Amino acid sequence: MSLTSKSPIEKISARPPSDDLTDEQFMSQALVLGHRVRHRCAPNPWVGALVVRRGEIVGQGATQAPGGRHAEIVALDEAADKACDSTVYVTLEPCVHEGRTGPCTEALINAGVNKVVVAILDPDPKMQGRGIAALRASGITVVTGVGKEEADFSLAPYVHHRLTGRSWCVLKVASSLDGRSVAANGESKWITGEASRTDSHELRRESQAVVVGSGTALLDAPTLTVRTPGYVGEQPLRVLLDSRGRVRATGPLFTTTLAPTLVFTTKSAPSKVVDDWLAAGAQVETIESGPKGKGVNLETVLGSLGKRGIVQTMFEGGPEVAGALVQGGFVNRLVAYISGMILGTEATSSFSGVGVPALDQATRFKLISCVAMGDDARLDFISLGES
Amino acid sequence: MSLTSKSPIEKISARPPSDDLTDEQFMSQALVLGHRVRHRCAPNPWVGALVVRRGEIVGQGATQAPGGRHAEIVALDEAADKACDSTVYVTLEPCVHEGRTGPCTEALINAGVNKVVVAILDPDPKMQGRGIAALRASGITVVTGVGKEEADFSLAPYVHHRLTGRSWCVLKVASSLDGRSVAANGESKWITGEASRTDSHELRRESQAVVVGSGTALLDAPTLTVRTPGYVGEQPLRVLLDSRGRVRATGPLFTTTLAPTLVFTTKSAPSKVVDDWLAAGAQVETIESGPKGKGVNLETVLGSLGKRGIVQTMFEGGPEVAGALVQGGFVNRLVAYISGMILGTEATSSFSGVGVPALDQATRFKLISCVAMGDDARLDFISLGES
Repeated sequence: MSLTSKSPIEKISARPPSDDLTDEQFMSQALVLGHRVRHRCAPNPWVGALVVRRGEIVGQGATQAPGGRHAEIVALDEAADKACDSTVYVTLEPCVHEGRTGPCTEALINAGVNKVVVAILDPDPKMQGRGIAALRASGITVVTGVGKEEADFSLAPYVHHRLTGRSWCVLKVASSLDGRSVAANGESKWITGEASRTDSHELRRESQAVVVGSGTALLDAPTLTVRTPGYVGEQPLRVLLDSRGRVRATGPLFTTTLAPTLVFTTKSAPSKVVDDWLAAGAQVETIESGPKGKGVNLETVLGSLGKRGIVQTMFEGGPEVAGALVQGGFVNRLVAYISGMILGTEATSSFSGVGVPALDQATRFKLISCVAMGDDARLDFISLGES
Repeated sequence: MSLTSKSPIEKISARPPSDDLTDEQFMSQALVLGHRVRHRCAPNPWVGALVVRRGEIVGQGATQAPGGRHAEIVALDEAADKACDSTVYVTLEPCVHEGRTGPCTEALINAGVNKVVVAILDPDPKMQGRGIAALRASGITVVTGVGKEEADFSLAPYVHHRLTGRSWCVLKVASSLDGRSVAANGESKWITGEASRTDSHELRRESQAVVVGSGTALLDAPTLTVRTPGYVGEQPLRVLLDSRGRVRATGPLFTTTLAPTLVFTTKSAPSKVVDDWLAAGAQVETIESGPKGKGVNLETVLGSLGKRGIVQTMFEGGPEVAGALVQGGFVNRLVAYISGMILGTEATSSFSGVGVPALDQATRFKLISCVAMGDDARLDFISLGES
């Protein structure tokens, strides 16, 4: 992936239209369609599809909310009779298993489609090439790998979730230019500005769970809901990590009429506190401690969230959680909002407790985009281990 | 100034050409001409000029190297007879004083120019509106303030130097995502990548002096020359800050055939060391200590460099110098190269010794651009006190 100030999908969106489109260009349009609905599909993948007949787009679609139609079905429905002899561009291998809608492969075959162009195969254990095989067996030409790089990027949380069973971990950090998230006197509001906070609500919106540690819960009493103006969709699951039961069952985080709340804790939490959490309507899961007996085990957290169908989890704070995620190698994507402030050496680092003896042992992330966000810079990274 | 990923001048360069240009658009072209030669003009300002007759550009120019022609003269020479009845766009008030070339006001009057559009007045004590007055006295229409914002940005180092007598201070910092410049084991090469290093040679090229502290000199043995491929122009003055005389007069920094070297020191430096510096061909200036007796007095350094005609000085390291510059409020522009590496809390902050008790007492810089630079992000800030 080449490095510019824009992410792969933003680059696609910015491309000028052309009269004579190639497979790559049609797939680009399908990728934009799919990427736009990434906030509404989980636990299903956010797929885009285009039906093209004699160079003309006759149908387009994106995955609907769970229970709704898959992208291919939406696009075929729009194309109606014109789907016959067409080429269908779809960002992920069409399904064969019986989901909540009928299999897409069958619909493609029945519509008389001539050729199907697929960006990437579906890593779901029920799929793994079976969709492609079904299409080919019925005489449809199938081309794969077109737009693979962009599809890998867009669908990375889905692919990760299906392959590992764990939720895709997005770490959000708001820091000063010298990498500090809490001032010497304990202040942490507001190191970054209004535009960054508004933008981070968009990150919440595309995540199905939002996590804070007990320190942030005590310091900031956060609400953790999506408050993008005009937003009326579902709220993410709010998750509190509190190994020792320090946070009382009061305040917006335990107002479970706003959004559901889940607490991960350990046996160290007093039973009175756990009872109060439950009485407030929160779910509570008692798990093992993290390394050296500190905090909760984050691998267990990500696995448990994965099992709950949460494809993407956003971690919002604070420095101890961020440090433990980095130290454990759990961060899949890192979004850093950096302000032009210098907070000095007495302020707290954004990543507490990370020990790096030498340069070649540092955790490294790959920059994928870099944009001004009001008075702050937003730097977007992915783990070097991921696509 | 609106905030985007590009600086004001980059935004101008990207504008599409138009058939029917306004004063603002002609001035934009003049600003680009001037900004392009910012590396070759000091101690003179980098000015651009355009001669326009009946909507057609008939002459353009930019300030030549010291001893050469001013921008207006270059543009008028190109226009020749066509300068008569023309409008001239010039980014800075034309000169009246006798410089190494004749005054530009006289040339504009003699050429029969009808109107002069000026972006900003010259803050030089010898000028301050006298150029405008001379043009008006001879019947030429003068409009000022067109393109002021961009001219303020482009010519800020020149304006600062003329108004304060001090050199404009550009601080370059290369750090990890958690704001560290030196790993726990002392390693500092290379936290950022090749593209950032190449880019920072461009910053050296537009500066007339490049400064390091004794810690960086001892750790990295830097050469501090401009090594942009194909570059054959003048090298900046290399400046070492060494209050106690820790750095020996050996290595590339004291190879004064590469480029001149100047050491700022205090009475604490052993005379043997000072003698060795002088014997190696370096200049040595003994000045007072900084606050609390630490390092050298940075205000004196910037004043002394200003007196030497050095309009822009780039500070390259290390953390102690960066911290002292921030703490003293001396930084006019800050360029931060940030890599996707996390170095942990045992690593050294990029800004040592900065004490900030509370958020509202933090030093704040204004983001002016934000771009990917290879695998790193380059964040460009200016002091909130400057234009």
